[in-house]
Amino acid sequence: MKFYDCSTAPSPRRVRIFLAEKGISVPTVQVDLRNNEQMSPAFRAINPDATVPVLELDDGTRITDAVGICVYFEAIQPRPALMGETAEEKALIASWQRTAERNGLYAGMEALRNASPALKGRALPGPDSYEQIPALAERGRARISRFFAQMDARFSESEFVAGPRYSIADITTLVAVDFARWVKLSAPEECVHLRRWHAQVTARPSAKA
Amino acid sequence: MKFYDCSTAPSPRRVRIFLAEKGISVPTVQVDLRNNEQMSPAFRAINPDATVPVLELDDGTRITDAVGICVYFEAIQPRPALMGETAEEKALIASWQRTAERNGLYAGMEALRNASPALKGRALPGPDSYEQIPALAERGRARISRFFAQMDARFSESEFVAGPRYSIADITTLVAVDFARWVKLSAPEECVHLRRWHAQVTARPSAKA
Repeated sequence: MKFYDCSTAPSPRRVRIFLAEKGISVPTVQVDLRNNEQMSPAFRAINPDATVPVLELDDGTRITDAVGICVYFEAIQPRPALMGETAEEKALIASWQRTAERNGLYAGMEALRNASPALKGRALPGPDSYEQIPALAERGRARISRFFAQMDARFSESEFVAGPRYSIADITTLVAVDFARWVKLSAPEECVHLRRWHAQVTARPSAKA
Repeated sequence: MKFYDCSTAPSPRRVRIFLAEKGISVPTVQVDLRNNEQMSPAFRAINPDATVPVLELDDGTRITDAVGICVYFEAIQPRPALMGETAEEKALIASWQRTAERNGLYAGMEALRNASPALKGRALPGPDSYEQIPALAERGRARISRFFAQMDARFSESEFVAGPRYSIADITTLVAVDFARWVKLSAPEECVHLRRWHAQVTARPSAKA
């Protein structure tokens, strides 16, 4: 098994935290996104989509999506459960994970990719070139602010994102909140519940992954 | 149990097809999106995010995300498996499902919501108002064309989206391909593999759901 990672990027960090919570370690190869190694013929032979993370299984099968990789590890090592145990837990965790991804992580990517001079012509991840759309960067920033407010309201009534237990929904939310700093946005002082939760999950050893 | 649906909308269709494949029927309430019923105080008391589908369980818990709802039904009735049985199948299906969602369904939503006169000020689903971004509508159209090509290549080597068995990844892809018609895009003649697959999954009784 081999894990293609980039230690500075948010998408593979989702998997690294997930693995740290499970206590699983996997031989890892760093892909240098800053120097566009993901666009090299060598890496595109591994993942034509030119993105990390990628998990390569011993039979050569490659899983090229962060959540897909987490699904794999949840199935081979169910404990600690990070995607729920009962049907209701599984559904609520999946639902919150996706909410955090759409409203937090994707909003952050829109804000960064449509504004950063280093990402001109690369407004979406992957091999295809898309021009930056400044209005989309602005919309991304507005959405991040609303995401902070949404999650603050959630944490006023729930210890973790999807209920009383830490889950993959917390991982996505943590990565999204930390990623927002790349566009110089962070949870405002008045979001006391969000800040309480952020301090709590950041104190877990997995957050360093 | 109660399912909040809108018979003309793509997101709840994902769940309807999933349930039809499982042979499950659930008491259903239609929400009239054309007349903005999702924005009414009555519906926002059910889902503050003002979106369908919503599944309400007998204990009052509400699941407000299409894939989250599918996760629930897969857990309570595992057969036929639509999200995989082995760890590898589960991971590949999740990964392909998400690829089809990002590159197909979300691209279609960008194309429609940023151009349709009826959706002015509502470029994203949910209660918050976002102005249309014409460049994003154009980008959505370009992405749909690339999605058709990507899936055509996939179907040249695989019977179904994620391998030899029908799965939730086929459901998302079918809904995405059909939704593209709303912006007058359909698989070009030369996409023979995509068209073969589309005819095949459309012939399943579930496609009428």
